[in-house]
Formats: sequence, structure tokens, C-alpha cells
Amino acid sequence: MFDSSLKNKFNFILVEPSHPGNIGAAARAIKNMGFTNLSLINPKDFPNEDAFYRAKGAKDILENAKIYEKLSNALKDATLIFGTSARTRTIPWPTKTSSELSIVLKKALESSNAKVCLVFGREISGLSNEELQMCDYHIKIPTDEDFSSINLSHAVQIISYVLKMEIDSIDLLPEMENESPTFQENEYLIDHFDQVMKKMDFYDQENPKQVKTRMRRLIKRLKPDKLETGILRGFLAKIEQVLNKKN
Amino acid sequence: MFDSSLKNKFNFILVEPSHPGNIGAAARAIKNMGFTNLSLINPKDFPNEDAFYRAKGAKDILENAKIYEKLSNALKDATLIFGTSARTRTIPWPTKTSSELSIVLKKALESSNAKVCLVFGREISGLSNEELQMCDYHIKIPTDEDFSSINLSHAVQIISYVLKMEIDSIDLLPEMENESPTFQENEYLIDHFDQVMKKMDFYDQENPKQVKTRMRRLIKRLKPDKLETGILRGFLAKIEQVLNKKN
Repeated sequence: MFDSSLKNKFNFILVEPSHPGNIGAAARAIKNMGFTNLSLINPKDFPNEDAFYRAKGAKDILENAKIYEKLSNALKDATLIFGTSARTRTIPWPTKTSSELSIVLKKALESSNAKVCLVFGREISGLSNEELQMCDYHIKIPTDEDFSSINLSHAVQIISYVLKMEIDSIDLLPEMENESPTFQENEYLIDHFDQVMKKMDFYDQENPKQVKTRMRRLIKRLKPDKLETGILRGFLAKIEQVLNKKN
Repeated sequence: MFDSSLKNKFNFILVEPSHPGNIGAAARAIKNMGFTNLSLINPKDFPNEDAFYRAKGAKDILENAKIYEKLSNALKDATLIFGTSARTRTIPWPTKTSSELSIVLKKALESSNAKVCLVFGREISGLSNEELQMCDYHIKIPTDEDFSSINLSHAVQIISYVLKMEIDSIDLLPEMENESPTFQENEYLIDHFDQVMKKMDFYDQENPKQVKTRMRRLIKRLKPDKLETGILRGFLAKIEQVLNKKN
């Protein structure tokens, strides 16, 4: 059951792209595969003539591109976030190769408020650790080990091609009823845990930063549904009440 | 059984590319996926600074790129030829989507003299009918119906990505003994049929050009092995003898 409107549920996000040519080439790449939504985080030089030249027949994608100052602002309604990453990180994150997307994609697209974000990093330095930790999954495009640095718009082309192939072959359940929590709701839950931990002086232990990151990763991997999120937040509120009474 | 030297059996061929930037970006794209061989047919502007700039760490691919005047010269040793094509042609040709490559690829790679060529057309006009008819298969990269014109280097990136994924997962038979006829040997066979048909006045019938093209397509699809090629050419020689006696 293929629904062309499925592609509207995707958003391609370029974080601080330096070269306007890459923005235009990325716009053309996603439109070639039937996608329409492009967001730019703090682009170095945009709007720019070279971007529109390289976009060819995809100038509409550039004209409708949304621009944000920070990645988190672009992710607010996201229900599933993939970040592209070439390097291996100190704290390992759930990682998919480009050909393994279908498994998580199908589930995400069955929710009524599905919004899948694909996040691409800077040409030279990629995504920061903080940005990568906003993602549910990291995607690693398989490359030759000795030469792994793919041009930004080419990475966008590979991912949008793989997504098109996946979406065109996905067999969705007819009822799209369950609602997924958004990035913002997840952030509230992560913050809530953090607040409670702070109140409990949990943070006085060694290496507080790692603890917070690991809690973040745990919740990202857990992917609680709306009801579960409610339960967890209720539980946290209860702890807070107890703590307040004690003081 | 993956053998990294398999990738040396591939050759990416760009026919009359106009933009040197695309040549550089294509070089980077194939190196990202572990390929090394690039050939250029009559490039408009090469060597060129912009090509080397866009190649980044793949300058060696450009330095070693082979340049030919005509596509047929670059194909001489080829045992399997794919040509990229967006349009549907008057005479339909065996066509594979990018995800269907594996079926024909495996068989080709099992021959001891395997040389697989991927042929990409001009930025604006693609490959000519004559060039497309030199190919064993046409590849159609699936795109959005309303916006199918993919940037040249992006098309190279998609195909090289798909090939890498296929090659990395192919399970080759250990003995690579059977030898495939090359493009040139096939051309001799096609020409031989043509000569015999002319001698028989087969060409005086309506629409001679279509007949020749259809014979070409038939032999391309047949993919005779060396022995079969020998039998067919023996048969043609025999017909010639008979014709000569008659005259």
C-alpha cells in the first residue's frame, strides 16, 4: 500500500552547510526521489545564486526551505530522527546502515503523526556530539575504509535513494492510529529525569556528564509511547513530591 | 567470499561530460565506494582545475582516468555493459533497475576475464541510441516521475553505492574459469551476421536499419559464450561459402 503523501512525512535537515552549491545539489537530489521538505540550520551563505543554479528544476524546494538557528528547533515535531555519522563515538549509539532503515521506518510511518527527520552534518566536521545525541539512530553510509568522506549532497542523494526504495516497497498497516511521542516530548522526559536526578544529588557522583548522556541514550532507545511517557513522567513527579516533603 | 580486487573489474565511463566539476565529483563518488577506474569519452574540458578541486581526496582517480575519442574504444575488453537511461526507447532493450543488478552481476563476475562497464551519458542529452545499443542492459535509476533528471555525479554515486552493496554481499563461486566473450568479439559476431545478411540481399526488405538493430539486441540478450560464438561464426562462414559458390 503505497501512499505518495508518505514522502511529505520526511524532512531533510542540513546543519550549517558551508557551500551553497551543496544546498542546491541536495535540493535537486531529494526532489529526484520525490521528497519536498528541506530545512537548513544556520547556513553560512543562503539564499545564494550558486544554490539556485545547482538546484536546476528543484528551485521550489529551496524557496520553501525552512531556516532555523538551532537543530533542536527543527526537530520539535519529529517522531523519528536519523543522524548521519562517519566516526565511531565514545558512547556508542544505536546505528543502522543505510540498507537497514526499513525495520525502524515501517513502525514509525504507521503512527498518525509520523515525522521522520534525516540530519546531515557540516561538510568538514559533521555533526557535534550534542547534535548526534538528539538522534534516535545514527546512519552510517558504507564506504571504502580508506576514503570515507562523502560530499554532502551525495550523502543526501544516497539516503534519499535508499528511502525511496524502502518507501515504495513498504507495506503499511491500513490503520494509522497510534501516536508517537515527538522529539520535544522526549526532551521533556529526559529533562525531567535530569531534574529529579539533580534534586536527589545523583549528580554528585563521578562523571556526571556521562550519566546524563547515558540516560538520554536509554530513553532514545526505549522509544516510549505516549502512555508510557505519561507513566514515567508521573513517576518522576511523584519522586519530586517525596523529595519536596523531605526538605 | 568477498575479494577487494573485484572492484578493479569495474570501469565507470562518462560520455562527453560538459562540466569538469561533475568529473571531479564522480571521481570522488566512485572512490568513496572503493572503485578506481574512470574513463572519459571526449570530455569537453579536461584536465581542469575545477575537476581536481571537486575530487578532493580522489585526485589519483582523475590522474589515472583514461580518455577515449569514442565509446566503442573504451568498451573493447568489456564483458558486461550497463548504460544509464532515463527515457524509454523506440526499440525496448533489456532493462534493470539499480536494485536488480545483482542477478546479472554475479554471473559476470564469475568469469575469469570479467570487466564490467557502467556508461553514463551527457548532462543534457544522455546517451545516443547508438551508444545505448552497445550496452547489454540499460539501467533506470528509479526517480520521481515528475523530476527525473539526476545530476551526473549523483547518478554515479547511486550506482557505485548500489554496486558496492551488491559486491560486498555477493557469494562468488570459487572457480572463476569460464571466459566471457568481450564487447569486441560480440561486435565481430554482429558484423558477421550483418555481412551475411547483406550478401543474401536480406537488407533490401523494408526498414533495414531496424533489422540490424534488432539483430544487435538479440545477440546482446543471447550473451553467447566463447564456444557458442565460435559455432555461430562457423555457421555464418559456411553460409558465405555457399553464397560465394552460387555467384
